[in-house]
Amino acid sequence: MAFKIGLLGLGTVGAGTAQILRDPEQRHPLLRELEIYRVGVRSLTKARSVSLPQSCLTTDLAAIVTDPAIDIVVEVMGGLEPARTLILQAIGHGKHVVTANKAVIARYGDEIFTAANQAGVYVLLEAAVGGGIPVIQPLKQSLGVNRIHTVLGIVNGTTNYILTRMQNEGADFAEVLADAQRLGYAEADPTADVDGLDAADKIAILAALAFRGRIKLSEVYCEGIRQVSAADISYAEKLGFVIKLLAVAKRQEPPSEAIEVRVHPALVAKTHPLAMVQGVNNAIVVEGEPLGQVMFLGPGAGSGPTASAVVSDLLNLAAVLQTQPAQVLHPLLSCPHNHYSPIAPIADLVTRFYARFVTQDCPGVIGKLGTCFGDHRVSLESLVQIGLRDELAEIVVVTHDVREGNFRRALEDIRALESVASIPSVLRVL
Amino acid sequence: MAFKIGLLGLGTVGAGTAQILRDPEQRHPLLRELEIYRVGVRSLTKARSVSLPQSCLTTDLAAIVTDPAIDIVVEVMGGLEPARTLILQAIGHGKHVVTANKAVIARYGDEIFTAANQAGVYVLLEAAVGGGIPVIQPLKQSLGVNRIHTVLGIVNGTTNYILTRMQNEGADFAEVLADAQRLGYAEADPTADVDGLDAADKIAILAALAFRGRIKLSEVYCEGIRQVSAADISYAEKLGFVIKLLAVAKRQEPPSEAIEVRVHPALVAKTHPLAMVQGVNNAIVVEGEPLGQVMFLGPGAGSGPTASAVVSDLLNLAAVLQTQPAQVLHPLLSCPHNHYSPIAPIADLVTRFYARFVTQDCPGVIGKLGTCFGDHRVSLESLVQIGLRDELAEIVVVTHDVREGNFRRALEDIRALESVASIPSVLRVL
Repeated sequence: MAFKIGLLGLGTVGAGTAQILRDPEQRHPLLRELEIYRVGVRSLTKARSVSLPQSCLTTDLAAIVTDPAIDIVVEVMGGLEPARTLILQAIGHGKHVVTANKAVIARYGDEIFTAANQAGVYVLLEAAVGGGIPVIQPLKQSLGVNRIHTVLGIVNGTTNYILTRMQNEGADFAEVLADAQRLGYAEADPTADVDGLDAADKIAILAALAFRGRIKLSEVYCEGIRQVSAADISYAEKLGFVIKLLAVAKRQEPPSEAIEVRVHPALVAKTHPLAMVQGVNNAIVVEGEPLGQVMFLGPGAGSGPTASAVVSDLLNLAAVLQTQPAQVLHPLLSCPHNHYSPIAPIADLVTRFYARFVTQDCPGVIGKLGTCFGDHRVSLESLVQIGLRDELAEIVVVTHDVREGNFRRALEDIRALESVASIPSVLRVL
Repeated sequence: MAFKIGLLGLGTVGAGTAQILRDPEQRHPLLRELEIYRVGVRSLTKARSVSLPQSCLTTDLAAIVTDPAIDIVVEVMGGLEPARTLILQAIGHGKHVVTANKAVIARYGDEIFTAANQAGVYVLLEAAVGGGIPVIQPLKQSLGVNRIHTVLGIVNGTTNYILTRMQNEGADFAEVLADAQRLGYAEADPTADVDGLDAADKIAILAALAFRGRIKLSEVYCEGIRQVSAADISYAEKLGFVIKLLAVAKRQEPPSEAIEVRVHPALVAKTHPLAMVQGVNNAIVVEGEPLGQVMFLGPGAGSGPTASAVVSDLLNLAAVLQTQPAQVLHPLLSCPHNHYSPIAPIADLVTRFYARFVTQDCPGVIGKLGTCFGDHRVSLESLVQIGLRDELAEIVVVTHDVREGNFRRALEDIRALESVASIPSVLRVL
C-alpha cells in the first residue's frame, strides 16, 4: 500500500472510517492504496465495533503524529485540546491532515493553515460541515468559478430535529429538548447545539471557503433556538412559514466590502427548498452568479456519513500524492488565502423581521406601534391582531426589508409604551 | 496567461462560458490563468451578447482542434456531428476536452475515453448532466468512497416543468406541452425531452460514473411522459404521490451483478425529497453505504448554470495542469474503466406498480382482477374503486414489490377479461 494513515480516535467516526478502508470492495479502487497504520485510542482493552490488529492500537498519540512512517493523520477525536496541538505537531512533521473537527478549524484555522502552507501539506475537512454531504469540495473545486453571494443552510441536526418535532407536535422547546436528550438526539449539555455555537463554527468555515478570506469566529453573530415557542411556530405556519435555525454567510451589496456571517432562527417560506429539510438532516444552499441557486441535502451527522466525508478527503489526498511532485500544492485542495474578511456588524443587517407583541386591548395601540416603526423608517408588510389572551391582545408584525439597527431602535420605543405589556418574540425572516 | 482555450460554439452556453472567463473579479483566482484564444462559430458577423476580439472568431473549427497553441478545447456546439469528430480530433492532437454534450458522451463515450486515455488527456463533462449542479465531480471525487447502490433523479427540466404544471393546473399533457412550446420551455420537436431520450443519455453517464463501468445506451430502458394523464396525477395525489419523470441507475441485489438503468415516469411519495422538485429544476439523489442518501438540487439548464459547470471543469484542469507532470493523469479526473456494466432487462425489475383499470360495473370484477394478479404472484397493497364514468367503473391498484415480468403477464390476463374495457395507465412507483 502506498499511503500510511495515523488515525487519532476510534469513536463513532474513527470506527466508521476504519470500516470503509478495511472493506474496499465496490468502492473507488484508489482506496486500496490507503492503509490504517496506527490508531490512537484512550483504552487498549475497550471492545471495538471494527476489528483492527491489536498492534495498530496505541495510547501514545504524540508518537503517531511524529512517526516518520505515517503520511496522513486523521483527527477524529473532537474537542479543542489535545486535537489542536496534535494537528499542529502532525503538520510540523510534514504530515497531511484530515479532520472532522469544526471547533478546532473555526477557532484555530488561522494558525493551522498558515503552518500547513509553510510545511507544504494539506489540511482537509469535508467532514467538519454537513456530515456526509459533499459541500466543502464543491465549494473549493467547482462553485468558486461563480461570484458567490450567499451560502446559507441548516447545518445543525439536533436543532433541526427539535424544531421539526415542535412543528409537527405543537410542543414547546423544553419538552422536545428533554425527549431528544432521552433519545440521544441531543447531548446532556445541549449548549453547543441549541445556542447555535456548533452552527457558528460551521458557517465560519463555509464563509471562509466561499469568500476566500479567514473569518474571526468572535465576529460571527450567534443566536440559538431557546426562545422559539410553539406559539411562534404556529403563527409562522399561518403566515406560510416554518422556523429553522439558519446559518448564513452573505456578501453585502457594494460599496460595502463586508460579509455577513450569522446564525439565528428565522422564518423560512414554505416554498423555499430549506423549508422541507426535516429532522436531523442538513442542507446547504449556495447562490452565485451566474449559477443561480443550488442546494445540497443529506445526513448531517452519524458514523457512516461523517466517515464517508473523511474518506473522501483521503481519496483526494491519495490521488494528488500519487500524481504530483512533493512540495507542489494543488491549488484547489490547499487554502492559500490568509487575510481576514471584514464582517458586517449585525446592526447593519438588512432583513425582514417577524415580531409578536402583547398589548392592552384598547383603541390606538396599533396606531402607536405604527408610529414607532414609522419614526425609524421601518415599513410593515403585515400587522395582524391574532387574538386575546388573559385580556391582552396579541399582535404579529412582519416588516419589509429594514436595517436591523433601525428595527431595534423602534422596538426600544415600543417597549417603552405603556400599552405594550411585552414583546415575547422577535425573529428574522429569510 | 497559462492555458489557451479553443471554444467550439458561441450559443447560450458558449457565450456564458466566455462571460465568466472575461470577468474574473470575485471568482477563483485561478480563472485568470485561462484565456479564450479561439472561438469557432458559424457566422463571423452575427451580433453576440459577449464581446470578444474579432480576431478570436473563426468559422474553421478544424483549425481550432488542431492548433498547436491550444491546450483545452471546450465543445458547446451540441448535436452529434461534427461535435464527435471534433472532440476526437482534439484528443488526437493532445488537447484536453471539456464538453456539455450528453448526447455525444452517452453514445460515443467508449471511443472518446479510450482515445483520451491513450493520448493522456482529460475529457470532463460536468455540464452534461444537471446543468449547474455539481454532481459529476462529487461522483468521481468523493461519493465513490461509498458502495453506491442507487443514483436517481429528475434530470430533464422540460418534462419536470410540464408535469409540475399538469399537477398545479389539473391540465392534460398535450395542452401544457403546447403552452410550454409557446413559452420556449419545450422545443418545437419535443421528442428528446418528452420521450425520455435526453434523460436516458444523462442517466447512462451518471451510471457509468457511479458504478465505474461503461453503459450501452441501447440497453437503457426508456419511457416518456406522453401517456401521463391529468386523471392519473389526480389519483396519485389522493394516494399521497406526485408523478415525476425519473432516471434511475441501481445496482441489483446480489447474486445479480447487473445494474438497472432506466427512465420512466413514476409515482413519488410526497415525503420523498424528489417530490418537491418544481418546474425546470433538476435534482439527483445518490444513495450508498455508509453514506445514506444525499440530494443535489438546482437549475438543470440555462446559459449561466451550464456555463458555471463548464468553467468548473476548466478550473479543475488548470489546477492539475499547473501542478502535475505531463503524461500523468489524475486518477479522479480521468475515466479509467473500460469494461461494460451488465444491464438487467426491464422484465427483471422489482418494483411497485400503479395501474388504472376501466371495467364493467358488475359484481365479481374485483375478484377476477385479484385472481389474475394472484396467479402471477403479484401481491396488492391497495385496490380502490374510484368511481364510475360512462357506466364503467374505474379501479386503481397499487402493488407491493413485484417482478415486472410477472406484473406484465398478469396485465395480459386481465386485458383478456371480458369485463375489463381498458387499462389506461400503468406506472411504476418509487
